[in-house]
Amino acid sequence: MTNSATNLRLKLPIACIILEVIIIILFGTLVQYDDETDAKLWHKEIANGSSNYDNDFYYRYPSFQDVHVMIFIGFGFLMTFLQRYGFSSVGFNFLIAAFALQWATLMQGFVHGMHGGKIHVGIESMINADFCTGSVLISFGAVLGKTSPVQLLVMSVIEVTLFAVNEFIVLSVLGAKDAGGSMTIHTFGAYFGLMVARVLYRPNLDKSKHKNCSVYHSDLFAMIGTIYLWMFWPSFNSAVTAHGDDQHRTAMNTYYSLAACTLATYGLSAVVAHDGKLDMVHIQNAALAGGVAVGTAGEMMLTPFGSMIVGFLAGTISVLGFKFLSPILEQKLKIQDTCGVHNLHGMPGVLGAIVGAVTAALATKDVYGDGMADVFPDIHSGDVEASFQGVRQAISLAVTLGIALLGGLITGFILKLPIYGAPPDTICFEDGIYWELPGEEGSQEELTTVRTPDEAEKLNA
Amino acid sequence: MTNSATNLRLKLPIACIILEVIIIILFGTLVQYDDETDAKLWHKEIANGSSNYDNDFYYRYPSFQDVHVMIFIGFGFLMTFLQRYGFSSVGFNFLIAAFALQWATLMQGFVHGMHGGKIHVGIESMINADFCTGSVLISFGAVLGKTSPVQLLVMSVIEVTLFAVNEFIVLSVLGAKDAGGSMTIHTFGAYFGLMVARVLYRPNLDKSKHKNCSVYHSDLFAMIGTIYLWMFWPSFNSAVTAHGDDQHRTAMNTYYSLAACTLATYGLSAVVAHDGKLDMVHIQNAALAGGVAVGTAGEMMLTPFGSMIVGFLAGTISVLGFKFLSPILEQKLKIQDTCGVHNLHGMPGVLGAIVGAVTAALATKDVYGDGMADVFPDIHSGDVEASFQGVRQAISLAVTLGIALLGGLITGFILKLPIYGAPPDTICFEDGIYWELPGEEGSQEELTTVRTPDEAEKLNA
Amino acid sequence: MTNSATNLRLKLPIACIILEVIIIILFGTLVQYDDETDAKLWHKEIANGSSNYDNDFYYRYPSFQDVHVMIFIGFGFLMTFLQRYGFSSVGFNFLIAAFALQWATLMQGFVHGMHGGKIHVGIESMINADFCTGSVLISFGAVLGKTSPVQLLVMSVIEVTLFAVNEFIVLSVLGAKDAGGSMTIHTFGAYFGLMVARVLYRPNLDKSKHKNCSVYHSDLFAMIGTIYLWMFWPSFNSAVTAHGDDQHRTAMNTYYSLAACTLATYGLSAVVAHDGKLDMVHIQNAALAGGVAVGTAGEMMLTPFGSMIVGFLAGTISVLGFKFLSPILEQKLKIQDTCGVHNLHGMPGVLGAIVGAVTAALATKDVYGDGMADVFPDIHSGDVEASFQGVRQAISLAVTLGIALLGGLITGFILKLPIYGAPPDTICFEDGIYWELPGEEGSQEELTTVRTPDEAEKLNA
Repeated sequence: MTNSATNLRLKLPIACIILEVIIIILFGTLVQYDDETDAKLWHKEIANGSSNYDNDFYYRYPSFQDVHVMIFIGFGFLMTFLQRYGFSSVGFNFLIAAFALQWATLMQGFVHGMHGGKIHVGIESMINADFCTGSVLISFGAVLGKTSPVQLLVMSVIEVTLFAVNEFIVLSVLGAKDAGGSMTIHTFGAYFGLMVARVLYRPNLDKSKHKNCSVYHSDLFAMIGTIYLWMFWPSFNSAVTAHGDDQHRTAMNTYYSLAACTLATYGLSAVVAHDGKLDMVHIQNAALAGGVAVGTAGEMMLTPFGSMIVGFLAGTISVLGFKFLSPILEQKLKIQDTCGVHNLHGMPGVLGAIVGAVTAALATKDVYGDGMADVFPDIHSGDVEASFQGVRQAISLAVTLGIALLGGLITGFILKLPIYGAPPDTICFEDGIYWELPGEEGSQEELTTVRTPDEAEKLNA
Repeated sequence: MTNSATNLRLKLPIACIILEVIIIILFGTLVQYDDETDAKLWHKEIANGSSNYDNDFYYRYPSFQDVHVMIFIGFGFLMTFLQRYGFSSVGFNFLIAAFALQWATLMQGFVHGMHGGKIHVGIESMINADFCTGSVLISFGAVLGKTSPVQLLVMSVIEVTLFAVNEFIVLSVLGAKDAGGSMTIHTFGAYFGLMVARVLYRPNLDKSKHKNCSVYHSDLFAMIGTIYLWMFWPSFNSAVTAHGDDQHRTAMNTYYSLAACTLATYGLSAVVAHDGKLDMVHIQNAALAGGVAVGTAGEMMLTPFGSMIVGFLAGTISVLGFKFLSPILEQKLKIQDTCGVHNLHGMPGVLGAIVGAVTAALATKDVYGDGMADVFPDIHSGDVEASFQGVRQAISLAVTLGIALLGGLITGFILKLPIYGAPPDTICFEDGIYWELPGEEGSQEELTTVRTPDEAEKLNA
Repeated sequence: MTNSATNLRLKLPIACIILEVIIIILFGTLVQYDDETDAKLWHKEIANGSSNYDNDFYYRYPSFQDVHVMIFIGFGFLMTFLQRYGFSSVGFNFLIAAFALQWATLMQGFVHGMHGGKIHVGIESMINADFCTGSVLISFGAVLGKTSPVQLLVMSVIEVTLFAVNEFIVLSVLGAKDAGGSMTIHTFGAYFGLMVARVLYRPNLDKSKHKNCSVYHSDLFAMIGTIYLWMFWPSFNSAVTAHGDDQHRTAMNTYYSLAACTLATYGLSAVVAHDGKLDMVHIQNAALAGGVAVGTAGEMMLTPFGSMIVGFLAGTISVLGFKFLSPILEQKLKIQDTCGVHNLHGMPGVLGAIVGAVTAALATKDVYGDGMADVFPDIHSGDVEASFQGVRQAISLAVTLGIALLGGLITGFILKLPIYGAPPDTICFEDGIYWELPGEEGSQEELTTVRTPDEAEKLNA
């Protein structure tokens, strides 16, 4: 499995080191502690009557760590389901996440407003950087097994940049709400990745078909990822909502949505899977769609009842998507979506955007009281009607889809250049191409020794 | 392994979808945000001088997430020790937990008091629902490998309901304290499950005996579950205790109890196991008994010293139970307790109840000061003597045992009906009966190709 | 693999039970709840105007749990990379951590000041005990696979004691700052362990060489450990820093250092590893060096820029260490460092100490403002100049190295006594010597049955 075209000895170090050096220089030039991480500035606030407990660290750090686990363990292990791609799934996930969170801090800092020419960083920028990283990892799921780490780094550079632009348009220009990122994270990441996968379409990918499936233990490793994503999704959706009832409510809505989604997933899986048995692909993925689908409306007064309906719908469309839509995507639209991100992030993300638009349009002062100021400041201030907020949400979905598809298209063509050490069609979904692999368990001693008839005869004697 | 009797194509979808639809309707009718999750109500409290930091979310959400990890990762992976039952262990754990937490919200809401005909939900109801779910998962451990997911859902419906009734009697009627659930969660779940296992006794289970054991990697997966349960048990026991010293003390008592329990477990395991070697079954289970055994007294002034003694005893009886009692339970009492929940949750739960009764009976104003109001409000108010609080604790244990055993008996007979697709005696402890299984690792290519003498000869040449 | 010399039936129970009984007696005599865990004392503070939220539990418990995960899951699974040592890696890690945290509570209590003859315990003592445990686990990494659990317990007794002494000298006598333990935890644990490994040098260890390597799935289990260590390192370094900006800044500096370190690790690994491929050993270990290297300076005003440079350097020297220095250590210095702790904790720890000394020497009132009181109280009070604080930091490194090396030397000779059931050279890195092992997956039924030509022929027919 050694091949000069896929040899990374020069390509990967150059990419990693150049990118990191650029980042370090930009951080040195542009990045500063914010008021809550700077010793002098925070103690000025203390002198003015603040308490240490007002530091946003205590409101958000536990949520941040949950999100962090989703990014590095959740996404990383979810993708280990492939039989011989566990090193790459966890390892490339690790690499591109570590890169993307740094790059995102810069890109989000640029577009979300500089402070006297400086980007201010603190717990909220850390969470937002992890969010942006999540979007890149969703796209990674679409091209999993068919890309080199250099391609993935290049993809991250572009996708993070466009993510920040889209997020700025959606949240700041259009004034939409999207705390858990149904649109900005899931829809964006999914359709960006699907378009990249479309451009990178490999007609001869069936040469690696026997590797594009799971084995027993790889599915168990993947369940680690699934369960962590499922458990911590309430923290994800609530990590940057307003303090107090908003964080509390968002976490709870997400919890109910996911629970209902899980029941729908198990029920539907047994209906559509072979022989009335459950399919691990559905359990690993569709059970999470409920978290995606309340990413926009979770902070609103969706009610537990509403959250459960949304979760139930999300699980349903996700299982049906795996069964009926994925084959069509591959055969008709030539989109080889390795992890099925269209079913987990794409459709549920769009559903979440629509639910968010409708829920926003129905917001009334009677229901939100003074809490309206947190959830819909523009409605609270009287600048817009609730119905118009709904329209802004809907426009945001359209903008997100547009930027994602166009960005993915351009990125796909850039990644198609034959300079990144991408794997050939015959060695996709295979760790050995980029990783030094250890010997097989017991293979040298136990198995190989009885693989010849002579030896087997002796054993038999 | 296809069998029309165990085919779930109709049974599981019907169960999942009917149950979820019922839940959604009941949530729509009965469930409301509480004061801390409702935008309007919380902002009224803010207007009245509350700070966002007073929102219970910040006191309890980190503990909730730790409990959540115990429920979904801890219990789920602990049960993956069986060689070919990992999908079912994690997957059915996931399904019944996602169901039970919704059902528990309703049942606990009914019995713990409605507010103007409505059930109020927030972080505390989420924790309590997870607790109730834990009880169901303990029972699941007793019947692991011998039940269909439909049976498990039916068991959950009944057990959650009885759990809520028992919890109401113990905590509200009898006025006992049981923050970490030595009685209400562990004793209840264990004896309920053991009685179900008794009724579902399979005389011919030895036909599946070769599957009822672990393999190397399945034991490592199980250790993920064990370690997470062990680490987060301090959060479990302290999740719903009073704010301040109570949460702090409960977490610390549990931490010390578990540490002492672990030393006892390793010591005893080497004594009783074969050849002076350690037995993974003991390590995976008995090391956790210390958390169970301070589930009642952990919030009291048990002292680190007392906690360690309790933990040490719990580890000891748990290892001895695995070695000497489990075989008797199976052969004499016909209780096939797959995970040994009697040793991890049953006996340590009873021990915990007794420790709680004794510790309560010894409570003095001199030791507790004004903190008495948090731990023993009725003693603080002068309504009862400490000794009588001890009696109430002891009665609560008896009531819990009674409801658990009777409930398990009835449930067992209901689950015995031949309509749930239970596995035959020959195919217990086997994922293949309910799950589409992937191919074996390398089996198609590497191993099978050299399994014929011809091919082996070529290889040898 | 049964051997009377390595049989633990008497040795391990005696060690565990005697140690635990001693601990329980000492706890009974000496340990008390502190003001924040004692019901009476805390309610006195409440009566004096404190709020429950002032209880340090809410500032530190989430960080504590993250540290706890690093100790038990992080270290435990990181060491499962060996093909047949997973039970021992996780299991002995579990045992010695559960012991060491109790012993550390006592030893740290003795040297850090008793309160009226009593050791006070609360969340901070729990974190510090876990920290001390981390140091022992680092040393465990150096001798992994070559020691019996009894040896490890004896090592823990001594190492914890010396750790407490060294920590007292560095933090209290010398007045150095080392919140994340670059010196006290990492440098100390690494050089202590390396010296023990030196004394326990086994010239014939190559007899177990075929076991001293990973297999595919063991490397994936190890990645669970790596990723958890990586994610929660910000919590580790910030767990005991001052409230407010200090915890916030420390966590963020660590986050940036680790991200930069990861890019450096991937880049360098591809340069130095065979064939331009990535080496799992580097990814599993060197990517963490960034957390070690900001263990001292993380709480200072290092800036994100500075943190990234430190992380980048740490990753670089760590990969180079694995490639070039480890073979020299083994061949020239006769140090068989199983996990390469010199590369992950040793050199990056020394780097962290130097960075801390330099950063301290450069501290100015202009940068720290009133925050100087938290980070450098002696500079703030005018007792010392910043430059002298730098000198104190540097002296602390020297003292730490001295105590670690001397302590490791003595401990090594104590562990060399032939009474602990250490494994022979031929059966190192092998679980079977201390654990009852389950059968191989499918080996009895599926594989062995077709291993004879007769059977294979039938299969072929």
